[in-house]
Amino acid sequence: MTIAIYPGSFDPVTNGHINLIERAARVFDHVVVAVAMNSQKQGLFAVEERLDLLHAVTGGIAGVEVDSFEGLLVDYVRRRGARVVIRGLRAVSDFEYEFQMAHMNHKLYPELETVFMVTGADEFYISSQLVKEVARLGGCVDGLVPPAVRDALSAKFRGARGT
Amino acid sequence: MTIAIYPGSFDPVTNGHINLIERAARVFDHVVVAVAMNSQKQGLFAVEERLDLLHAVTGGIAGVEVDSFEGLLVDYVRRRGARVVIRGLRAVSDFEYEFQMAHMNHKLYPELETVFMVTGADEFYISSQLVKEVARLGGCVDGLVPPAVRDALSAKFRGARGT
Amino acid sequence: MTIAIYPGSFDPVTNGHINLIERAARVFDHVVVAVAMNSQKQGLFAVEERLDLLHAVTGGIAGVEVDSFEGLLVDYVRRRGARVVIRGLRAVSDFEYEFQMAHMNHKLYPELETVFMVTGADEFYISSQLVKEVARLGGCVDGLVPPAVRDALSAKFRGARGT
Amino acid sequence: MTIAIYPGSFDPVTNGHINLIERAARVFDHVVVAVAMNSQKQGLFAVEERLDLLHAVTGGIAGVEVDSFEGLLVDYVRRRGARVVIRGLRAVSDFEYEFQMAHMNHKLYPELETVFMVTGADEFYISSQLVKEVARLGGCVDGLVPPAVRDALSAKFRGARGT
Amino acid sequence: MTIAIYPGSFDPVTNGHINLIERAARVFDHVVVAVAMNSQKQGLFAVEERLDLLHAVTGGIAGVEVDSFEGLLVDYVRRRGARVVIRGLRAVSDFEYEFQMAHMNHKLYPELETVFMVTGADEFYISSQLVKEVARLGGCVDGLVPPAVRDALSAKFRGARGT
Amino acid sequence: MTIAIYPGSFDPVTNGHINLIERAARVFDHVVVAVAMNSQKQGLFAVEERLDLLHAVTGGIAGVEVDSFEGLLVDYVRRRGARVVIRGLRAVSDFEYEFQMAHMNHKLYPELETVFMVTGADEFYISSQLVKEVARLGGCVDGLVPPAVRDALSAKFRGARGT
Repeated sequence: MTIAIYPGSFDPVTNGHINLIERAARVFDHVVVAVAMNSQKQGLFAVEERLDLLHAVTGGIAGVEVDSFEGLLVDYVRRRGARVVIRGLRAVSDFEYEFQMAHMNHKLYPELETVFMVTGADEFYISSQLVKEVARLGGCVDGLVPPAVRDALSAKFRGARGT
Repeated sequence: MTIAIYPGSFDPVTNGHINLIERAARVFDHVVVAVAMNSQKQGLFAVEERLDLLHAVTGGIAGVEVDSFEGLLVDYVRRRGARVVIRGLRAVSDFEYEFQMAHMNHKLYPELETVFMVTGADEFYISSQLVKEVARLGGCVDGLVPPAVRDALSAKFRGARGT
Repeated sequence: MTIAIYPGSFDPVTNGHINLIERAARVFDHVVVAVAMNSQKQGLFAVEERLDLLHAVTGGIAGVEVDSFEGLLVDYVRRRGARVVIRGLRAVSDFEYEFQMAHMNHKLYPELETVFMVTGADEFYISSQLVKEVARLGGCVDGLVPPAVRDALSAKFRGARGT
Repeated sequence: MTIAIYPGSFDPVTNGHINLIERAARVFDHVVVAVAMNSQKQGLFAVEERLDLLHAVTGGIAGVEVDSFEGLLVDYVRRRGARVVIRGLRAVSDFEYEFQMAHMNHKLYPELETVFMVTGADEFYISSQLVKEVARLGGCVDGLVPPAVRDALSAKFRGARGT
Repeated sequence: MTIAIYPGSFDPVTNGHINLIERAARVFDHVVVAVAMNSQKQGLFAVEERLDLLHAVTGGIAGVEVDSFEGLLVDYVRRRGARVVIRGLRAVSDFEYEFQMAHMNHKLYPELETVFMVTGADEFYISSQLVKEVARLGGCVDGLVPPAVRDALSAKFRGARGT
Repeated sequence: MTIAIYPGSFDPVTNGHINLIERAARVFDHVVVAVAMNSQKQGLFAVEERLDLLHAVTGGIAGVEVDSFEGLLVDYVRRRGARVVIRGLRAVSDFEYEFQMAHMNHKLYPELETVFMVTGADEFYISSQLVKEVARLGGCVDGLVPPAVRDALSAKFRGARGT
């Protein structure tokens, strides 16, 4: 059975992530969506919130598990007994960074293979950061994130605006 | 009459911006240079100062107006009754980001069209950030910004160096 | 009145081109879709056929004219009394080439401005060349080109396969 | 069981291809290395020769099969009952083209997923075309291709030079 | 004394090449502008003509020599007792190809170092191919190539047009 | 004698830097590795520590000097009586930034020439930032940095983890 790890911040999960998760689940036996905990970078959502949203929106996809990890990705992949990491590609600048990370991770764990899948044509311009920016400025994020995430963003920024 | 909005930080305006404004004014009936106010990011110049510099250096160009806005660009464009946004392109990494923003803005406001113009051959390496860095380190910015901006930069950093 | 020239081979016109023509027609008063005649490069469709297909598929778009030209684009633009050239951008490699052409054309005709528009999210992977390749190998091109072009491709390759 | 198709010209197979095949075989249950027959483009090696070389150099890798196909890749993938296509990525210009093909193939066969793997750090500058050019000019291709391919190249160009 | 080889087709030499040659001559003791003879690709100008034009336009630059070579660049570099190759960079797609060639040449001749210099801001959009295209269509190439090259292009295409 | 300045943060020096320094020393008579002091950006290592590590790891390379500078690079290059700056290129996004800087520096000091060398195939994915990230998370950095740097990183992060 091939276990594939799909790591990321998922702060929050977008329709672009979900499109990729659905397609990865058709390619691999078991897909672990793994939230990277980063003590250096404070997210908009706490890791617990991100996991809750991921559970809510990936609940219906067979063969998908949600998890979180701290420390190096390669150590987590090894602990899980996995050898495949999935990354989404949206654009050239993504690719440069991902290319560098794939080689670094291969160096740190030579059995590890990174496979890339391109984001769907309808989602390639969606990133968590851009979605947060739109929501913060009061824009409508329908079609960019699932309803549960839209409501969570709404609650965050309503709070921030003190209303 | 086609109104085109040219949004940006303009912190401060450079010769690259001015080259683009002049050329956009030949293509569109009315060009609005719109300073984006960003409560999350403190600029070197206050929005008022940026507007003053823009007025000073674009005063002689027919069909050009200077304005500022808060919130989402698409909301501002709608309020102005406009449908065209102009963006300058200098390099590939610019393009990737701009491509993403153009699609996002089209999604938020389907009538909006983003048109791109390439920066002149003499200005493509000029960015507000690099100009500020050169000025901060005491370098000469003649040829990179108009004299009014050079003097304003000079005053800022003289103050910063306590002389 | 702003006349904008949209030059290309259009061998044949695709849904990507049509998306761009429709959007350009909303930005500019008059859009001339101009087939470049190239004595050095034999196309799949003769210039007359390309013009017929363009007429057929852009007939309903207000403010759009179809034409052809020989020789340098800048000479044609000058003859038409125009100063704006439109080009579509799909990808980075497009951009590099287009950037070079925009500067060259500006050098040859300093009043000329090139404006770029990005292809729609649903069409960015469509090129005339790829469409011809798919059609040649018997693939279905519905959704990539209008029905009239699909039928014309079909007729071309049926002939080529001798059936 | 996941069958993954790795299509290409393999004219001839290089160490870069072999590195990718070995790594793909660790990720997928069954990997089909599929030589695309292209009636429009004459290769240096005939398809039969390419298949022979591929058999010779991938013989020892478990789970790898060598095949050839004519026509559209998506039709071949369907006929094989597969849904996964593997492509190697070496550089940005590769990526642009591959991105376009992945979306086109997804459009022609919505169940198909393209996964990308990056070429090893020691092989990323190797392409069949560059290897042929080096061999044609009498350069040493050891380390770029397996010995069997080196000898085949040598025989080709010795013939071509009439010695 | 550091000898640097600047290889290329120079079919014909442009102002972009000359800018690079002048600057390379300030960095290295001796610069050899080396025309690559390619039996597979017929140029517009014969190798002898290219050498004559190069001699004419680089005659006044101290420390510059003009030469030609056949076969692999690395073999020529070795024969010349050199270890440095200069290449100009204009754009990203250039860079990808050059990156690959630099690594391949380093593999074929490990002592060889490739150094890159960027083309001047006024010449980055000039390529031999584009210049030939402009000249062929009757455009003015002043400012793109030296007068001697302009006249040679003019003579070529006048002949071609049968006048 | 050609003096070439190789500026950077070197926070800390990696095997990628060392590979470049060794190769630059074969091309130029004298290479100055120059640590840029940046009052705006706090590094992991103090400038003194970076210089010590650079001395330790470049001690055996003939023709190499280690230095530091404050302020504009062009002013430092001028003070040193040099005209050549060396920069390493790893990837496209590097290139865009470097291209911009090369033109800006040429504008600030027209006699200055920037030459680029590509990082070795084994080191192109190594950056100081990524190395620090790996070390911070407890990963093994052997093969990415020299032993002296590995030990220094280890000491830094052991302290940070309070053990």
